[in-house]
Amino acid sequence: MLENLNLKKLFPSQNFKETEFVKNIRPLAKATHNDLTFFDNLKYKNHAMSTKAPICITTKSLEKFLPQKVKKILVDNVLYELAKALKNIFPDADIDFPDNTLKPISEKKFENIVFGKNILVGENVKIGKNTLIGNNTIIEKNVSIGNDCVIGNNVVLKSCLIGNNVVIQNNCCIGSKGFGFIPMKDKNFKFPHIGKVLINDNVEIACGCTIDRGSVDDTEIGKNTYIDNQVHIAHNVKIGSSCMIAGQVGFAGSSTIGNNVSIGGQAGISGHLKIGNNVKIGGGSGVIKDIEDNQIVMGYPATSVKNFIKRNKNK
Amino acid sequence: MLENLNLKKLFPSQNFKETEFVKNIRPLAKATHNDLTFFDNLKYKNHAMSTKAPICITTKSLEKFLPQKVKKILVDNVLYELAKALKNIFPDADIDFPDNTLKPISEKKFENIVFGKNILVGENVKIGKNTLIGNNTIIEKNVSIGNDCVIGNNVVLKSCLIGNNVVIQNNCCIGSKGFGFIPMKDKNFKFPHIGKVLINDNVEIACGCTIDRGSVDDTEIGKNTYIDNQVHIAHNVKIGSSCMIAGQVGFAGSSTIGNNVSIGGQAGISGHLKIGNNVKIGGGSGVIKDIEDNQIVMGYPATSVKNFIKRNKNK
Amino acid sequence: MLENLNLKKLFPSQNFKETEFVKNIRPLAKATHNDLTFFDNLKYKNHAMSTKAPICITTKSLEKFLPQKVKKILVDNVLYELAKALKNIFPDADIDFPDNTLKPISEKKFENIVFGKNILVGENVKIGKNTLIGNNTIIEKNVSIGNDCVIGNNVVLKSCLIGNNVVIQNNCCIGSKGFGFIPMKDKNFKFPHIGKVLINDNVEIACGCTIDRGSVDDTEIGKNTYIDNQVHIAHNVKIGSSCMIAGQVGFAGSSTIGNNVSIGGQAGISGHLKIGNNVKIGGGSGVIKDIEDNQIVMGYPATSVKNFIKRNKNK
Repeated sequence: MLENLNLKKLFPSQNFKETEFVKNIRPLAKATHNDLTFFDNLKYKNHAMSTKAPICITTKSLEKFLPQKVKKILVDNVLYELAKALKNIFPDADIDFPDNTLKPISEKKFENIVFGKNILVGENVKIGKNTLIGNNTIIEKNVSIGNDCVIGNNVVLKSCLIGNNVVIQNNCCIGSKGFGFIPMKDKNFKFPHIGKVLINDNVEIACGCTIDRGSVDDTEIGKNTYIDNQVHIAHNVKIGSSCMIAGQVGFAGSSTIGNNVSIGGQAGISGHLKIGNNVKIGGGSGVIKDIEDNQIVMGYPATSVKNFIKRNKNK
Repeated sequence: MLENLNLKKLFPSQNFKETEFVKNIRPLAKATHNDLTFFDNLKYKNHAMSTKAPICITTKSLEKFLPQKVKKILVDNVLYELAKALKNIFPDADIDFPDNTLKPISEKKFENIVFGKNILVGENVKIGKNTLIGNNTIIEKNVSIGNDCVIGNNVVLKSCLIGNNVVIQNNCCIGSKGFGFIPMKDKNFKFPHIGKVLINDNVEIACGCTIDRGSVDDTEIGKNTYIDNQVHIAHNVKIGSSCMIAGQVGFAGSSTIGNNVSIGGQAGISGHLKIGNNVKIGGGSGVIKDIEDNQIVMGYPATSVKNFIKRNKNK
Repeated sequence: MLENLNLKKLFPSQNFKETEFVKNIRPLAKATHNDLTFFDNLKYKNHAMSTKAPICITTKSLEKFLPQKVKKILVDNVLYELAKALKNIFPDADIDFPDNTLKPISEKKFENIVFGKNILVGENVKIGKNTLIGNNTIIEKNVSIGNDCVIGNNVVLKSCLIGNNVVIQNNCCIGSKGFGFIPMKDKNFKFPHIGKVLINDNVEIACGCTIDRGSVDDTEIGKNTYIDNQVHIAHNVKIGSSCMIAGQVGFAGSSTIGNNVSIGGQAGISGHLKIGNNVKIGGGSGVIKDIEDNQIVMGYPATSVKNFIKRNKNK
């Protein structure tokens, strides 16, 4: 957890005193009265208007949506300034360096679990009782796994907290850095990813999935949600509980999916969307707009089933 | 192989005698006069009408399609009752527990093959002569591999039978549990998967593919079929011989694909479909209906090339 | 590198003398006055007209496009004859046999790098200084990795040359054989792949990507290009510099992508296309035609954004 970040260290070129601190850097809606936040996208206007954060990085054109009492750090490129600030504090969060604390798992330390061959475990890893772990699996430092879980072979776990009774099948990569960077002519500026992946109880994740950790926020998979093979979940995505995500579905970053949502194979969900509860999305659909609760949609761009049938009539 | 399943143990709440047995649990079309079968989907009406099985789990609304002489076990949710019955008999088939019989491969036991480092092999594994196996590969119990095969690195093989002259490239997962479960409010009921993956002679499977084992039936890849990188093949899918499946294609469960079928990259095939012989499916297509022999289709939903061109005219 | 290929050995059934040699086999546009080339697709007519190669395998219907002075080897199926010729010279290039020179990485030999556990390295591998390598990673013979790179866990590197400051995340397969073969009734003829994958400086490749090596040409990723999770790049594809390729994008073989191109998640690019510089391709699009510089396209088939909106109006 982040705590007591020195603002002068975060933003050397801004006019902060050595003694000014924030507790954490968090998105608009999650920031408390001790946190720094950032506002770079009109989509989050409502979050901006009600943010509790006392300080916010933003642009000249967006500052008007923030409460008066919020101190604004005005910049041209919010994400670039945020990335630079994070890099000052977390110099290793922008590249997935191999964890240098990894050691072969020790039977003494993890006595109530069953595990295969060639497992590597980093510092401060917690694994609950009755959990089984396959072979060649890597569990990096600070990862926590609950009770009664089954983790497959060739899995890489990093920066994640896993609940109880979770199944993660072979060849999954959980908690890798998301696809975030500031484009630069010859050498992009990599966005530090300080978030985690939170996987709640009873989740099942099939083979070959990738779930990236959050950038500033966390990525989260709700309770009892099942995810089929080769699904890609980008940074900051939140998936609700009891969802069914079929094979090869892809989620771009920062979308929020409700509860009891079912998504057919190969569908794609664009970034920064809000999908309601009980939504059904047909296989192969491309969702590029928010969807309200209880809707059934299909096609690319995804539309109601009624429209989809009309769209393809006589064709 | 399953044999002599006690019906009272399968269905404790039904009125079976201790002495009633079936030999196996099999789909409608494959069940013999000793097997239990199940019928839950009107799509299989014709199979139901001609099934040889003496006992069938089905619903009140479907039972009329079954021959009179078939004893019906009437339930509300066929797959749930079947899942519970299977779970009674195969308590470990609903989760891919790591194989606890795995040991480093022994040169003595497998003397006519060439293999790399850190290979693990389970009990009762058979590997044919002149087969080569890469590094970090896991071959779980009861897997059989033919002669002259090449298996890559980081491959996980489970519940599968592989013919001769088969190539499986790096990071493939063959035989994992399919994406099958009965949705439940807080904790889904996982469907036991007792089927296998059958891979016939001369097949080539490129990197990062996932081929799930069958639930009650088997998943099968026909002779001389070639499969490109990152293809996902769900449970119970049957692919014929000499097919060409390009990269990132996905098959939902239980579809049957003919011989000499070619499928372009990223196409998706919905579940429970029948695709004929010599069919060509354009890249990126979404197939949601059966396709007859010799058709060429494109688009989403996939349609004949003629229609596809018309659909996109002046656009 | 290929040098001094004996033409009689390449084509035993042709009328070559024992003393006739070419230096290399290269595509039309790249062949020098010492190389053999091949011409099988009208798309490359312009390349054919200006090729420098003295000898070319082609068909009766295409030979007219080649300069008069070029010696033509006329065949029915160019790729089949080329495949057979390559197989004569490179008998092991048509299957990815595990590298039998692999050994556990030696601290003595690679002293300026940091590496994890269970890493295997083949003969003649070069790794630059300050490079970090994760666990269970396999680096096959002749692979070269530059300075300041970070290679993740479970990565397989084969037939590739990697520049400086490159990041390759977990579970990637770089340099595997492409999906190329001559369909045959019972046993396809596998096309030997003698090309490489060239990855230029500052590239980032996220988890679970597959980048196949070239067949006769090379596959190439330009400087500062970033590639998200689960992207598939087929043989001979060239991607320019400073591109952004989002998750699950797929490239069919032999397409050329310009510089500063951004491609949204799950988009697909057909084979043998030319995409210009500064092109933006929307997520989920299917590109089946060349695209000129500076265009923004969406949909399947991909079209200008203006057309895409019109296409979906009132729908």
